[in-house]
Amino acid sequence: MRNGPTRPRAGGSTADHVTVRRHNLSVVLSHLRDHGPRSRARLAEETGLNKTTVSSLVAELVDRGLVGEGETERATVGRPGQIIRLDGEHVVAVGAEVNVGYLSVLVLNLRGQVVTRQRIALDTAAMDPALVLSRLARLLDTALLGVGVHPVGVAIAVPGLVEADTGVVRAAPNLGWTDVPVVAEINRLLGEPPYPVLLDNEANLAALAEVEAQGLDRDGDLILVTGAAGIGSGIVVGGRLLRGARGFAGEAGHMRVREGGPQCACGHTGCWEAAVGLNALLAAVPGHEPPHTSAHDPEQDPLPDLERRLAEIGDRAAAGDARVLDAIAEVDRWLSVGAGILVTVFNPHVLVLGGYFAALRPWIAGSLRDELRGHVFARDGGGTRVAFSPLGFSGSVRGGASQVLDRVFRDPVLVEPVDKPLAQEETV
Amino acid sequence: MRNGPTRPRAGGSTADHVTVRRHNLSVVLSHLRDHGPRSRARLAEETGLNKTTVSSLVAELVDRGLVGEGETERATVGRPGQIIRLDGEHVVAVGAEVNVGYLSVLVLNLRGQVVTRQRIALDTAAMDPALVLSRLARLLDTALLGVGVHPVGVAIAVPGLVEADTGVVRAAPNLGWTDVPVVAEINRLLGEPPYPVLLDNEANLAALAEVEAQGLDRDGDLILVTGAAGIGSGIVVGGRLLRGARGFAGEAGHMRVREGGPQCACGHTGCWEAAVGLNALLAAVPGHEPPHTSAHDPEQDPLPDLERRLAEIGDRAAAGDARVLDAIAEVDRWLSVGAGILVTVFNPHVLVLGGYFAALRPWIAGSLRDELRGHVFARDGGGTRVAFSPLGFSGSVRGGASQVLDRVFRDPVLVEPVDKPLAQEETV
Repeated sequence: MRNGPTRPRAGGSTADHVTVRRHNLSVVLSHLRDHGPRSRARLAEETGLNKTTVSSLVAELVDRGLVGEGETERATVGRPGQIIRLDGEHVVAVGAEVNVGYLSVLVLNLRGQVVTRQRIALDTAAMDPALVLSRLARLLDTALLGVGVHPVGVAIAVPGLVEADTGVVRAAPNLGWTDVPVVAEINRLLGEPPYPVLLDNEANLAALAEVEAQGLDRDGDLILVTGAAGIGSGIVVGGRLLRGARGFAGEAGHMRVREGGPQCACGHTGCWEAAVGLNALLAAVPGHEPPHTSAHDPEQDPLPDLERRLAEIGDRAAAGDARVLDAIAEVDRWLSVGAGILVTVFNPHVLVLGGYFAALRPWIAGSLRDELRGHVFARDGGGTRVAFSPLGFSGSVRGGASQVLDRVFRDPVLVEPVDKPLAQEETV
Repeated sequence: MRNGPTRPRAGGSTADHVTVRRHNLSVVLSHLRDHGPRSRARLAEETGLNKTTVSSLVAELVDRGLVGEGETERATVGRPGQIIRLDGEHVVAVGAEVNVGYLSVLVLNLRGQVVTRQRIALDTAAMDPALVLSRLARLLDTALLGVGVHPVGVAIAVPGLVEADTGVVRAAPNLGWTDVPVVAEINRLLGEPPYPVLLDNEANLAALAEVEAQGLDRDGDLILVTGAAGIGSGIVVGGRLLRGARGFAGEAGHMRVREGGPQCACGHTGCWEAAVGLNALLAAVPGHEPPHTSAHDPEQDPLPDLERRLAEIGDRAAAGDARVLDAIAEVDRWLSVGAGILVTVFNPHVLVLGGYFAALRPWIAGSLRDELRGHVFARDGGGTRVAFSPLGFSGSVRGGASQVLDRVFRDPVLVEPVDKPLAQEETV
């Protein structure tokens, strides 16, 4: 299609009109998501579609249960117009995550509201991948049982190199995974469900969630650097994830920034994440050895929750514990070097720090901003804003669920009309 | 337009049909550029447009002098079809470049053939920017006088931070330029010409030229790192230049990769270009001091041409001069570190080394490939191919001229029909 026409030609076939209508359904539905409830007249004005077309499109979206009608809230002179708003309470999508120390599942409806969320502490890095995936399937089953309808799809986030096409995790060093066919395995465990199961890198999905959380335009540029055992990074350029030639882009954690630094879980030395990952911080703070070195039974003795461990480190820093403050300062120093490289190369609107970096905000925010202002080539850090993620550890599951919902916004016809006989296979 | 419809609605207005026709003219013209001469029937088949429409579009492109007809070259059974091919000999575009040590101008016609090229050695870094620009305007005047028609436009390449919108060079440390209004000045010097004068970063334009030179798909991912006094980098993602929030993206030369390294022209330390730029190499090779330190009269004693200086270094390396080989090895080491970072983050199809790096190819190609295979996180360097630019120092001017020609491919109506009275203002 690269060089083909993107508009129907004059005298086009019926197929063209179907394509145009599906596209226009998407335009109206997405407009309501991005700009909020509004009248048909305003929809027509703002999208450039004519009023008759908008009425017909809205009628179809109502039939599919994707939008609903209501009175305007504003008290205005004259008769209030009928206001169209997103509905889609029966349309849900699932984000799931496997990470070091926990599994997580979150279900969103079409309005982006959380329907349910589950999170369990689990020493995933010490367990066999098959066992981890069976625990994840159980968590998914439980969450979906509560929801009661088939989701539009499930997106699974994993910290590592992911082949989205095949659904295989190629390398996730912090989990100790190599060539794990996650999608095939989850599909099998869920009994080959009628909805798609997708796989992506956890930081990629979290970065997409941040575009919205940071109030950025949908075609903005954003970099998320998220501190976990290692660090993840997701890079959004012009509103789209940077994926690269083979889908391996965005692995900023393995930039070689520190000559002679400690060995990384990936086997190389000098990697950014070996200098600033949570494992590096825990190793430097007495009493907080990294999870990898523990040898307890993961089923009986799940790791202390990451937030709790971090809160403890935060408490010690706040109390002025010199060893903790030194360890944080060293992390901060290398965090700034890598962040400076990314901002120099990408000049994003926002650099977001997530995961455990957000928990260290009081000790790192100032020096990081100074560093970017001082060291990035373009004046004043190239105008890049530094922000801390408000999403905690839920960014990946939220981003995953949003990605799945996006499929509906791009093609609302994926959701069948609700007045059809509602065999579950027809709701996806 | 982000949320607006991209296709005309059913019952659309005349404006829609004009838009569709302009788009389809672009589809046909671009198809001929990308895939070579072919019959109307084949154009119809490959673009999805119907035959009547293609005939009408071709007729209009012939009127505008953009395409021509000819017999098929292949001897086939039956009557040979009329073959349509790009014409556009009277449609030309200009790329110009200001760089350390030289000015350069190149004129391409619509077929991408070089109409004329000019290059002069000039110690631009030692001169006042106004003087450099007046020399550039003279060079442009001379080149265009020989061509005899107004160009579609002129693109000027400069090594530094460029504000494309305003036509101002914000910072070009290797030239010593700050806030130079290049476009306004050139427009004034050329007597406010009827065609647009554009400004871009030299490595950005050269990167675009490499997409074609490397035989990459037009939506491919490519990184060009070009060695000059400093180093330039241009990053193409999905066929488009990475520009960032304020247009300052792609400044890989100022990634901080070398703790405690020498001071960079930008004022910081540790920058990649301070470790691998030509100035770094020349400083390390006795008898090849960097141009900045010379104090000759630029008009009377232009710098020895860069290629000649490099050939000399190459000769000494080939003869086994240990000091030259050591200097090259040190450059190579840091080149590999920075290249590894870029490949890890972007996972491009191709990493192209241009400028003086291409001249050092025999001494750096092998070790660089080893480094990427060995250090990039994704297996086998993530599949990224390492290539050396075949364009020498002409990449920026070629890319600039191509960018200007692209305006015609995107909207062929920019070129007036040739049978109209040919007042020069109407040819642009």
